[in-house]
Amino acid sequence: MHVLILNGPNLNLLGQRDQNVYGGKTLAEINAGLEAEAKKLGLTVEFYQSNSEGELVDRIQGFDGGAIIINAGAYSHYSLAVADALRDCKKLKIEAHLSNIFAREEFRRTSVLSPVCDGVISGFGEQSYLLALKYLAGRVQ
Amino acid sequence: MHVLILNGPNLNLLGQRDQNVYGGKTLAEINAGLEAEAKKLGLTVEFYQSNSEGELVDRIQGFDGGAIIINAGAYSHYSLAVADALRDCKKLKIEAHLSNIFAREEFRRTSVLSPVCDGVISGFGEQSYLLALKYLAGRVQ
Amino acid sequence: MHVLILNGPNLNLLGQRDQNVYGGKTLAEINAGLEAEAKKLGLTVEFYQSNSEGELVDRIQGFDGGAIIINAGAYSHYSLAVADALRDCKKLKIEAHLSNIFAREEFRRTSVLSPVCDGVISGFGEQSYLLALKYLAGRVQ
Amino acid sequence: MHVLILNGPNLNLLGQRDQNVYGGKTLAEINAGLEAEAKKLGLTVEFYQSNSEGELVDRIQGFDGGAIIINAGAYSHYSLAVADALRDCKKLKIEAHLSNIFAREEFRRTSVLSPVCDGVISGFGEQSYLLALKYLAGRVQ
Amino acid sequence: MHVLILNGPNLNLLGQRDQNVYGGKTLAEINAGLEAEAKKLGLTVEFYQSNSEGELVDRIQGFDGGAIIINAGAYSHYSLAVADALRDCKKLKIEAHLSNIFAREEFRRTSVLSPVCDGVISGFGEQSYLLALKYLAGRVQ
Amino acid sequence: MHVLILNGPNLNLLGQRDQNVYGGKTLAEINAGLEAEAKKLGLTVEFYQSNSEGELVDRIQGFDGGAIIINAGAYSHYSLAVADALRDCKKLKIEAHLSNIFAREEFRRTSVLSPVCDGVISGFGEQSYLLALKYLAGRVQ
Amino acid sequence: MHVLILNGPNLNLLGQRDQNVYGGKTLAEINAGLEAEAKKLGLTVEFYQSNSEGELVDRIQGFDGGAIIINAGAYSHYSLAVADALRDCKKLKIEAHLSNIFAREEFRRTSVLSPVCDGVISGFGEQSYLLALKYLAGRVQ
Amino acid sequence: MHVLILNGPNLNLLGQRDQNVYGGKTLAEINAGLEAEAKKLGLTVEFYQSNSEGELVDRIQGFDGGAIIINAGAYSHYSLAVADALRDCKKLKIEAHLSNIFAREEFRRTSVLSPVCDGVISGFGEQSYLLALKYLAGRVQ
Amino acid sequence: MHVLILNGPNLNLLGQRDQNVYGGKTLAEINAGLEAEAKKLGLTVEFYQSNSEGELVDRIQGFDGGAIIINAGAYSHYSLAVADALRDCKKLKIEAHLSNIFAREEFRRTSVLSPVCDGVISGFGEQSYLLALKYLAGRVQ
Amino acid sequence: MHVLILNGPNLNLLGQRDQNVYGGKTLAEINAGLEAEAKKLGLTVEFYQSNSEGELVDRIQGFDGGAIIINAGAYSHYSLAVADALRDCKKLKIEAHLSNIFAREEFRRTSVLSPVCDGVISGFGEQSYLLALKYLAGRVQ
Amino acid sequence: MHVLILNGPNLNLLGQRDQNVYGGKTLAEINAGLEAEAKKLGLTVEFYQSNSEGELVDRIQGFDGGAIIINAGAYSHYSLAVADALRDCKKLKIEAHLSNIFAREEFRRTSVLSPVCDGVISGFGEQSYLLALKYLAGRVQ
Amino acid sequence: MHVLILNGPNLNLLGQRDQNVYGGKTLAEINAGLEAEAKKLGLTVEFYQSNSEGELVDRIQGFDGGAIIINAGAYSHYSLAVADALRDCKKLKIEAHLSNIFAREEFRRTSVLSPVCDGVISGFGEQSYLLALKYLAGRVQ
Repeated sequence: MHVLILNGPNLNLLGQRDQNVYGGKTLAEINAGLEAEAKKLGLTVEFYQSNSEGELVDRIQGFDGGAIIINAGAYSHYSLAVADALRDCKKLKIEAHLSNIFAREEFRRTSVLSPVCDGVISGFGEQSYLLALKYLAGRVQ
Repeated sequence: MHVLILNGPNLNLLGQRDQNVYGGKTLAEINAGLEAEAKKLGLTVEFYQSNSEGELVDRIQGFDGGAIIINAGAYSHYSLAVADALRDCKKLKIEAHLSNIFAREEFRRTSVLSPVCDGVISGFGEQSYLLALKYLAGRVQ
Repeated sequence: MHVLILNGPNLNLLGQRDQNVYGGKTLAEINAGLEAEAKKLGLTVEFYQSNSEGELVDRIQGFDGGAIIINAGAYSHYSLAVADALRDCKKLKIEAHLSNIFAREEFRRTSVLSPVCDGVISGFGEQSYLLALKYLAGRVQ
Repeated sequence: MHVLILNGPNLNLLGQRDQNVYGGKTLAEINAGLEAEAKKLGLTVEFYQSNSEGELVDRIQGFDGGAIIINAGAYSHYSLAVADALRDCKKLKIEAHLSNIFAREEFRRTSVLSPVCDGVISGFGEQSYLLALKYLAGRVQ
Repeated sequence: MHVLILNGPNLNLLGQRDQNVYGGKTLAEINAGLEAEAKKLGLTVEFYQSNSEGELVDRIQGFDGGAIIINAGAYSHYSLAVADALRDCKKLKIEAHLSNIFAREEFRRTSVLSPVCDGVISGFGEQSYLLALKYLAGRVQ
Repeated sequence: MHVLILNGPNLNLLGQRDQNVYGGKTLAEINAGLEAEAKKLGLTVEFYQSNSEGELVDRIQGFDGGAIIINAGAYSHYSLAVADALRDCKKLKIEAHLSNIFAREEFRRTSVLSPVCDGVISGFGEQSYLLALKYLAGRVQ
Repeated sequence: MHVLILNGPNLNLLGQRDQNVYGGKTLAEINAGLEAEAKKLGLTVEFYQSNSEGELVDRIQGFDGGAIIINAGAYSHYSLAVADALRDCKKLKIEAHLSNIFAREEFRRTSVLSPVCDGVISGFGEQSYLLALKYLAGRVQ
Repeated sequence: MHVLILNGPNLNLLGQRDQNVYGGKTLAEINAGLEAEAKKLGLTVEFYQSNSEGELVDRIQGFDGGAIIINAGAYSHYSLAVADALRDCKKLKIEAHLSNIFAREEFRRTSVLSPVCDGVISGFGEQSYLLALKYLAGRVQ
Repeated sequence: MHVLILNGPNLNLLGQRDQNVYGGKTLAEINAGLEAEAKKLGLTVEFYQSNSEGELVDRIQGFDGGAIIINAGAYSHYSLAVADALRDCKKLKIEAHLSNIFAREEFRRTSVLSPVCDGVISGFGEQSYLLALKYLAGRVQ
Repeated sequence: MHVLILNGPNLNLLGQRDQNVYGGKTLAEINAGLEAEAKKLGLTVEFYQSNSEGELVDRIQGFDGGAIIINAGAYSHYSLAVADALRDCKKLKIEAHLSNIFAREEFRRTSVLSPVCDGVISGFGEQSYLLALKYLAGRVQ
Repeated sequence: MHVLILNGPNLNLLGQRDQNVYGGKTLAEINAGLEAEAKKLGLTVEFYQSNSEGELVDRIQGFDGGAIIINAGAYSHYSLAVADALRDCKKLKIEAHLSNIFAREEFRRTSVLSPVCDGVISGFGEQSYLLALKYLAGRVQ
Repeated sequence: MHVLILNGPNLNLLGQRDQNVYGGKTLAEINAGLEAEAKKLGLTVEFYQSNSEGELVDRIQGFDGGAIIINAGAYSHYSLAVADALRDCKKLKIEAHLSNIFAREEFRRTSVLSPVCDGVISGFGEQSYLLALKYLAGRVQ
């Protein structure tokens, strides 16, 4: 199974952002770790990050693999355009968040993407992505 | 009169999206039909689709014709930026929707664009655009 | 196809009501125009106006043609009885408004009839009815 | 005890309305059944149905018997005029609904009539009226 | 100046309704008193009461005198149709209530008619109508 | 048909609780009366009362008869756990209340159980249970 | 009967404030007119204006006559302290407003004083006070 | 690390509940699978299910291991008592749900437990528990 | 006077819970202190703590003394069952909280028990119970 | 410890206000009793009452003793100015109410002062002040 | 241009209030600095501070210069009386706040004064006043 | 200090947009004026305008100077992505608006950017930017 790991706005600055919330690794470091783990799990992965809502929609539309893991950052909370793109996309879709969004500011506690994803994993740092990969690997078997 | 027919996010995937809601034609097929009808009505048309909110704003700002027909998809429900662009634009502006947005999910029932358009046509499939063209043709005469 | 054009409260005073909002024609003048256009489109039309909610319900129930075009005036915003009558009626149903109700007072921006109609046309003056007729004529062909 | 069984808008179309919700009998059939049962229970009944809010108010005001069973249809959810008529009426008053209104659309879950009735029976099809009659018969004894 | 005194639903039952709220006089008695007072004030009056929303709209539309005093009873709180009729009517319009509606149930504390009337008088029993007449008499002079 | 009559918190104190609201009989007296009536109707009944939400859930899960009549007292208004137990239970389910809950404090006017029951009977004192039994007896025949 | 006419914040600037809303007379001119009218009506009046919430409370508490006519200006909409003072005061209390507060900004449409006054008169300019006086004169007779 | 897997109301009926939502396995079957997986991951597990809010609180308080995985069923949405127990408990705490609660009824979309857990996993069927175990196993290493 | 001091969920863990909020003493230590003080005040006390809502209801129902002091912990904010038990109980009832619940999380600022208690004491640590005892002792004298 | 006992609007009329709510003593009588009790408890007290929000702020700012007991009357529910004065004041601060404000009108159930006081005592009549003094005396020891 | 710099409740305690929020200078020190700067800018200034809402209204009404800079402290969030005074005042009006009120407690994020001022400056400490002065000086030139 | 002056959607059309709201200068003219003033103040400035939310995020992330002045136009009211970018950016951040957003449509009165900026300046036309520059210049000294 080929998996797209999609990150939204400001996640390109991981490592610089508040480390108590997001951990100390850069996105590149996280992605490298995920790529290694994916190989072990028998999955192939590609990565994409954008600060642009439209580009995230484009990428979801253009993806041809088996599953999407998406952390849309702040867009999670209001981007109905990304939600529609996911709704129309007939792959497995997992929403992942580094922090536990339900324990943060009020506006972060609701994701408009959750209702159109298959599942949600939130609060495990970079492990949130990894757990999603493990789930997908389990599905494949 | 020259008319811009503007489509927003995920409308490039018409034909693939839920056909019960949006019908089975592609956007290209719809546009071809509209172009033919426009000619009969004595109007010229141009088409633009983008998944990017900013590009929709750019296009509205840059349009120099007589009227805009806009189906902004999911942006209809929250893009105050597109709404401001339309508010500033002193052309005829018609909001069109393929589906009857008032009979769908709660979040689709309010469009922030409606108050700044001249009129709204919703629920007639591709005919929504065509009715808008017919109205404009009538205005010209 | 035979079409009922139904007008609700205070629309009998068109021509006297605020002409900036509703235009200067009387309802009789508008209806005469629509009748002429309908004939050209190959449709037959009948007209009914009432200030009484119950009479509008009665008329919807009693109608035996192919489609209803309804502008329920103020009842649009709260008459669940008219909405139920439309919901139970298995014809084509189009909601029409002279003014763009979404650009007016807050209470006019929601119609309880919209979710039970096939489509909505709002803001084109008397053309709102005409566009509905044109749509119906297109369906017939 | 003489009982008025009052039905509001669109209930005259029972048998034609969605039979999954309202059952397959016409109002005349239901009323015939109730009349027969009432006789057995030692009650006399009269029936009235109207799509007009004002006529329902008139009838409540004019009723001189011992109890009213009312299914005001859509008016249940907003007719403060009917509610005031019931509030002023010093008879036994029972609100009845064929369907379980609490399991339907949000707007049907609140009845402005309930607070001014003695009791509410909802969801038992035509039996809702019959249970009300049985209660009244029990009161008489 | 000729004045229409318009009463809405359930006000025909004054004298029977809760006398702590509405006083003990019938509507006929109140009207007789008002007619006598009007004569003294140099005004002519006509009276109309209906339980029907549509008939109230009809009467407002058809009135050709100088001022309307309206106590629309329960319709005050939701009849946008009556409100539109008043909005379109270019006479003096005074809203009157026997009881102090602001000291009663929550739903009675807002009148959709108030914003389209010239003034509101509430809580003075039958004097509410009389004060309105006195105001009108003052305007005439 | 075997019927479980389930009572929730504080209903064990009937007879002591406010008699204007709940009547003067104890729960044992009511149950004795219901048992006698059930026999006449050809039904068997069992009774259970608990102040514990979990025990009500347990009992619903463990019930093997044909129908449940439930008055969950205060839990009616917030126990999603009881609601889920009822939702999962594929018997006939009737919600009953001694008082007319719609005429009492705001918080008592909504029951989270109503949407998952077949019908609701409220406001007839102990007759609320009896009417439910009569309905069930009618279903059996 | 001795009457206190109480005016709240910014009403001392009548004549200078927006004349379309409040009319062109100063408070002194209005008061002079009211004093003359009161004499004719057989009433005595005293006047008090303050921009201070506490002073309005003090004055209400200290008043020993038969009735208060109060236009508390902006305090009408939030001063629970003035409302409590009125609630405790066992005189006749009439709320008066120059403008029709129900036709103005949203925040002006609710008065926390209305529920503790006997009646409300709003929208008749200085006549609002005069109508209140006339009512009081009528009560005396 | 020793882990408590805690299940709330109605989860003892897995296998009987709606299988489209919850899958076809019984809780015992799920637990057996988790126990086997836990052994492989080097974790020990204990299981507890209760329909009683208080017993869930008791168990959380009495637990002495390293982590809790909790699926509190309906209590997730309102049990502040369970939330307080978790808040006071200084272990790792993971909230798990079989179904994607964010894609279901409105009331299921908010969990009062989420803000006091370390992370949330929702929508992966029995894999939700397993992913939680895998996360814990990763923490141990 | 005999007094029941009732503590709800998670209060059995006092001494372990956040000491900045709840102080450092165990419930046993607090109770011992209260017992000693009660003796001095001429009162007898009994203590009960439960994490179970139903058991709190049971205990309130079964109490035969003169007054109840209740700190229902998290149940304070939603247990209508406990509220009903208190409402039905015709003793003196005082709600006590260790912390100032009005200065904490939003959900803790409203207690559904407060309206059915005689008084509320919040924010004085263990002294909250003691002040309640002192009040009761004063009532006895 | 020197204590300021601060009373807000309309509390100067105790003895005259509704005695069912506030008891029959005047403020002077209550204060005399409190002064005597304070002496026994080893505290000194001063008293201040004002109907003016600004004067209450002034007095809080100017106070130099050890604790404030404040019953701000109606200002409790909206005076952010008094709240700010208390927030800035680094003494012990206790909010006291004669009546149980949580059992009264909706607007009285929230105090904007509570979050900035150390504790709240409500519903014990004049004993509310006395319990506050006893708490303070206990703190001193 | 002559400028009134108006400060509301608790701003007289600057220097003592939370220095992280408001800075360490007293109001006198700030005013001295502003006076010096104003002189350089060619403006004259006067200062007024009051904890009394009414006095702020009085001062606004009585001011005869060219502009008002107002920091109404807590009154900013609810004083419709001060708002009306500003609305009626036909000078330049600038709202200033030391702290960034939009980054503080929810209730501080809305100012009822902002809609009636010409502009708002918030969050720059004492510089907020100075920037306002600089703007006014620029207007003069 | 180097300053980035960032303008959001539709601000590129200044000079064409409603001049009553935004003034008559183009953005280029405003920027030229600001550049000249900045030089006098000892600051360097760069300018960036985009209609794209993502590009605004990119630019904030990539900025390496000392302060940002941002007028995000319509994005101010909903772009949590821009807000997160500002939150993560550890420079001085000032929000500026040409018009007084608090005196305009409801949706413009709340900015999601304000809580993450150091201060807000709104309503002074192009001077809003200049005042921000003056503040920054003052900080530098």
